[in-house]
Amino acid sequence: MSMAPRVAVIMGSQSDWATMRHAAETLDALGVAYDPRIVSAHRTPDRLVAFAKGAREAGLQVVIAGAGGAAHLPGMVASMTSLPVLGVPVESKALSGQDSLLSIVQMPAGIPVGTLAIGRAGAINAALLAAAILALHDPDLAGRLDAWRARQTAAVAERPETDAP
Amino acid sequence: MSMAPRVAVIMGSQSDWATMRHAAETLDALGVAYDPRIVSAHRTPDRLVAFAKGAREAGLQVVIAGAGGAAHLPGMVASMTSLPVLGVPVESKALSGQDSLLSIVQMPAGIPVGTLAIGRAGAINAALLAAAILALHDPDLAGRLDAWRARQTAAVAERPETDAP
Amino acid sequence: MSMAPRVAVIMGSQSDWATMRHAAETLDALGVAYDPRIVSAHRTPDRLVAFAKGAREAGLQVVIAGAGGAAHLPGMVASMTSLPVLGVPVESKALSGQDSLLSIVQMPAGIPVGTLAIGRAGAINAALLAAAILALHDPDLAGRLDAWRARQTAAVAERPETDAP
Amino acid sequence: MSMAPRVAVIMGSQSDWATMRHAAETLDALGVAYDPRIVSAHRTPDRLVAFAKGAREAGLQVVIAGAGGAAHLPGMVASMTSLPVLGVPVESKALSGQDSLLSIVQMPAGIPVGTLAIGRAGAINAALLAAAILALHDPDLAGRLDAWRARQTAAVAERPETDAP
Amino acid sequence: MSMAPRVAVIMGSQSDWATMRHAAETLDALGVAYDPRIVSAHRTPDRLVAFAKGAREAGLQVVIAGAGGAAHLPGMVASMTSLPVLGVPVESKALSGQDSLLSIVQMPAGIPVGTLAIGRAGAINAALLAAAILALHDPDLAGRLDAWRARQTAAVAERPETDAP
Amino acid sequence: MSMAPRVAVIMGSQSDWATMRHAAETLDALGVAYDPRIVSAHRTPDRLVAFAKGAREAGLQVVIAGAGGAAHLPGMVASMTSLPVLGVPVESKALSGQDSLLSIVQMPAGIPVGTLAIGRAGAINAALLAAAILALHDPDLAGRLDAWRARQTAAVAERPETDAP
Amino acid sequence: MSMAPRVAVIMGSQSDWATMRHAAETLDALGVAYDPRIVSAHRTPDRLVAFAKGAREAGLQVVIAGAGGAAHLPGMVASMTSLPVLGVPVESKALSGQDSLLSIVQMPAGIPVGTLAIGRAGAINAALLAAAILALHDPDLAGRLDAWRARQTAAVAERPETDAP
Amino acid sequence: MSMAPRVAVIMGSQSDWATMRHAAETLDALGVAYDPRIVSAHRTPDRLVAFAKGAREAGLQVVIAGAGGAAHLPGMVASMTSLPVLGVPVESKALSGQDSLLSIVQMPAGIPVGTLAIGRAGAINAALLAAAILALHDPDLAGRLDAWRARQTAAVAERPETDAP
Repeated sequence: MSMAPRVAVIMGSQSDWATMRHAAETLDALGVAYDPRIVSAHRTPDRLVAFAKGAREAGLQVVIAGAGGAAHLPGMVASMTSLPVLGVPVESKALSGQDSLLSIVQMPAGIPVGTLAIGRAGAINAALLAAAILALHDPDLAGRLDAWRARQTAAVAERPETDAP
Repeated sequence: MSMAPRVAVIMGSQSDWATMRHAAETLDALGVAYDPRIVSAHRTPDRLVAFAKGAREAGLQVVIAGAGGAAHLPGMVASMTSLPVLGVPVESKALSGQDSLLSIVQMPAGIPVGTLAIGRAGAINAALLAAAILALHDPDLAGRLDAWRARQTAAVAERPETDAP
Repeated sequence: MSMAPRVAVIMGSQSDWATMRHAAETLDALGVAYDPRIVSAHRTPDRLVAFAKGAREAGLQVVIAGAGGAAHLPGMVASMTSLPVLGVPVESKALSGQDSLLSIVQMPAGIPVGTLAIGRAGAINAALLAAAILALHDPDLAGRLDAWRARQTAAVAERPETDAP
Repeated sequence: MSMAPRVAVIMGSQSDWATMRHAAETLDALGVAYDPRIVSAHRTPDRLVAFAKGAREAGLQVVIAGAGGAAHLPGMVASMTSLPVLGVPVESKALSGQDSLLSIVQMPAGIPVGTLAIGRAGAINAALLAAAILALHDPDLAGRLDAWRARQTAAVAERPETDAP
Repeated sequence: MSMAPRVAVIMGSQSDWATMRHAAETLDALGVAYDPRIVSAHRTPDRLVAFAKGAREAGLQVVIAGAGGAAHLPGMVASMTSLPVLGVPVESKALSGQDSLLSIVQMPAGIPVGTLAIGRAGAINAALLAAAILALHDPDLAGRLDAWRARQTAAVAERPETDAP
Repeated sequence: MSMAPRVAVIMGSQSDWATMRHAAETLDALGVAYDPRIVSAHRTPDRLVAFAKGAREAGLQVVIAGAGGAAHLPGMVASMTSLPVLGVPVESKALSGQDSLLSIVQMPAGIPVGTLAIGRAGAINAALLAAAILALHDPDLAGRLDAWRARQTAAVAERPETDAP
Repeated sequence: MSMAPRVAVIMGSQSDWATMRHAAETLDALGVAYDPRIVSAHRTPDRLVAFAKGAREAGLQVVIAGAGGAAHLPGMVASMTSLPVLGVPVESKALSGQDSLLSIVQMPAGIPVGTLAIGRAGAINAALLAAAILALHDPDLAGRLDAWRARQTAAVAERPETDAP
Repeated sequence: MSMAPRVAVIMGSQSDWATMRHAAETLDALGVAYDPRIVSAHRTPDRLVAFAKGAREAGLQVVIAGAGGAAHLPGMVASMTSLPVLGVPVESKALSGQDSLLSIVQMPAGIPVGTLAIGRAGAINAALLAAAILALHDPDLAGRLDAWRARQTAAVAERPETDAP
């Protein structure tokens, strides 16, 4: 994609990509350029600091951060940038993402993270919310977003297919 | 406040104001005009539809919605507007806001709500996140937001006051 | 089925049919006509309003609504009709329906949703409760319902089949 | 009240009255006659059996049952009558009604209990749902119920009273 | 087995046998006669009453009752007999037995159910606890129980088999 | 009390007495001699071993053990005696006894603890269950226990005192 | 205190001191010098980095970190030092420290935080564990720690003071 | 391994080895000698006492203890030694290790257990924390630990492999 990315899609580890690719695919569908990166709050703290402090200067406007378990990535990025940060709780093995959700959403007053649902739905919705934010000043994107949502509405059948599995 | 409000601060009932006033006060501190309203998803569904469908045309750019228990307000507003919607789970009596949190954050793919922490911290952070979104295209606000955060950082003492209660 | 349906069986998406078909099959077994529909609170809010406001006039007497995650469908229907609304929490992926249950049952004072168990058992029981409601003024149905329950009681063996898997 | 009661409001102990009185007051407001009784599933099992088996013959049409902790009353009544049974989880001391909720709502397939929210809101809503059921064949009550709900809607202020405590 | 059974092993449905057979097998191993029965609190309430009220006269000394979900069987038996009642929470599908556990253990003051762990371990332990109760006045059984426990202790290896799967 | 105690009422700390005194008072009411002791699994492990290994020889027949938080006392006593052990989860500060409950009830196969409800109700019921166990071979106690339960049943009013607080 | 501190007691905010002072007081009682500091992962991220990266050089040997809600402080310190880090979950308002606990304990493989109990007990125990670590190479401290624990054991009364409140 | 082990890796049963082997493998990778043992708090209480009381004299400096369900092993070892004890909650079947976690971490004031994450991550981190403790006085080990962590950091890719599964 040739446009300079306005959205970062970061995640704590390679294994989070199975979830976060849904954010990427949704941004693709909406024609929003993004930069996917692995930034581990715990294993690469220097990369975290460099990324978060340089995000605005790099031209980013929204950061989408996914992490699981004691998920510190979204909140720590938010502590070092005033860009909007959106958090995606990745489903964890033992606790099914309940730990991820609480670790991301329960931020103290002063440092916000806009948190989406656990897992795939949250990743898609983070992309949609990022697009909605960018669309405030991008009429073309606003049009694409409205069209995306209209297609979504149109795709809802009137009646359940009673032979579907 | 004489500016046309760009942020709505809506809530399901009068009792939610005790929480949502912290969003309002934070927006005041940042010089962001807002419109506080009671919109009950359950008791005033027509008002909900009118508000959500008219939000963009009314000049709003971000909606902050607080609700407790089976908290449907943020998600239902998000279903009828593509503006960014931020949700604040109000602490509920029996379940301490766990019901509010899950009812707001666990939105299905397609309709995002950026969810903040339960209670007062979430209300403050919804205001900060709304400001961060608006600041992407409002350098003055960006400056005020950075100043607000710098003051916050400066206000953290080095050592605990060991005689504080 | 040639009778005008007195019960609606609505659900948020096609995937909920795997759960809600158990409500449909139970209504079939009891000879209660029903209308199965997909009504997504979030993706088709206009359909939701039209359905809920028109439900009584359409001759419906009970609405059974199933949804998962941030499950707003039952409560939002209840906000726009004074017909009895019964809610079925569909089991969600990450949280096993705990989010669905709390989003449906924790309605604020003023707008009731009679909530059943998570998943298949809840779908069956929603059908049985709808039938019990209709049976108050339908002696034939009351007889069929009592017979159904008598068969259920009779089908309980005295002793576990100790060779059963 | 001179009308023969069509609704029973039963509860497991005197202490549940603090919650269940809200069901009673709501039924009073709607002009629905009711019979309030203490029926303890555990301490008075014979009374439970007598009540549940005699409920239909006594002219009752809906049973509202409130209980806390290992709350067996609603489900056990439902096992012995095919009348609609509505359950109200009373807030328990240690677990805030989470035990009450699960003990009432998670009924197995075959025996439904329409469950409302934990505590006061659930008690009010049980009364409203009972009224909605009775109103299907009682136009006067239907009118009173609609008027009650219209008053409720009208009572929602447009804006929060920002000086309210 | 020719001895008159002193222990009943009852369960709410055939499907609970997969769990409760572990109680039966443990009683077999200890040489304690038992009577396995299906008694559904919800689907066979008359059988429940008959069983519970007749338990002592039938020569039973301990009742082991397993049930899942809104598990009312152990508590309702306990309400109608003063024999010791032991409850086994059967693992439920959506909530993994958390509902079963709370429905059984959170009994109100006055009616005790001695509750064991969720699932297979609880079933085995219910048998062991029943045996411990009977062994207070049965020296032979006491000896067999001590031998069982000594074998259990002896079977614990000193070191993990590091090639075990 | 002049009888040799057949029941021990042990607890992890002085602060647990506020809960466990209800077990003691119930045993008093039933005329069952008991020995109240503080045995801390964590702070007095030697006392724990001495108590548990000597319990049977000391003439005890049932051990009631209350503890809170990571509540190891009941399970550790059960590991060192084959007497029946009953566990009472004491309500903890942060987690309201959920930790106490799980730490006591989720014992592995092989070592049973009959667990009662969290807090005061559990303490009373532990006493009642201990009495039920002893009453299997003590007709006088059986009579007192039945009388206690009959009084309990008789004390349940027919109707709520609607002026009670 | 004139000794160079070997333990840091850090916390996210002044309000955490009410909990963390119990760590400080325990270290005082054991004669272990410590340095109490406020280091907010979110509001003072630069201070966090400076502290964590400089901890070893500053002569520290153990870091005790307390935080509440989305508690990132202990884990982020651990990501930037290989000194032992002990985490204390501070009790949060809405969720009673369940969020704090999961945010601290559920660290991914590679970056350990030794987590203690929620609240005051956890703060005391963090101090004791820090002392146990230091005592491995400090016989005097080992002696003081053993004496502290012996006094603790000796302070456990044999019997509950039955007149205590 | 020829060095005398400074770390014990104990577990409640053979089945815990599937989790605890990750602690062993991590210690191997760091060149830390260890002693793996099965010590069941419940089935081998005498072995527990012997192990815990003899740990220091046996030359051990850190104890890593893994257990599941009502996991008493770490806390009971900690009650009988003042060596640092680290606890690993093994994932349990029904409750996914939530019971294990609370049973280990919620220790009362006075007896600390440094608790790691549920399952494999916790086992690895227990080994790393044990190494960090030993490394305070073992420069060689400190070097190996730092190298291990540097390799870990270096192994984090910059970007997700978008074709990875």
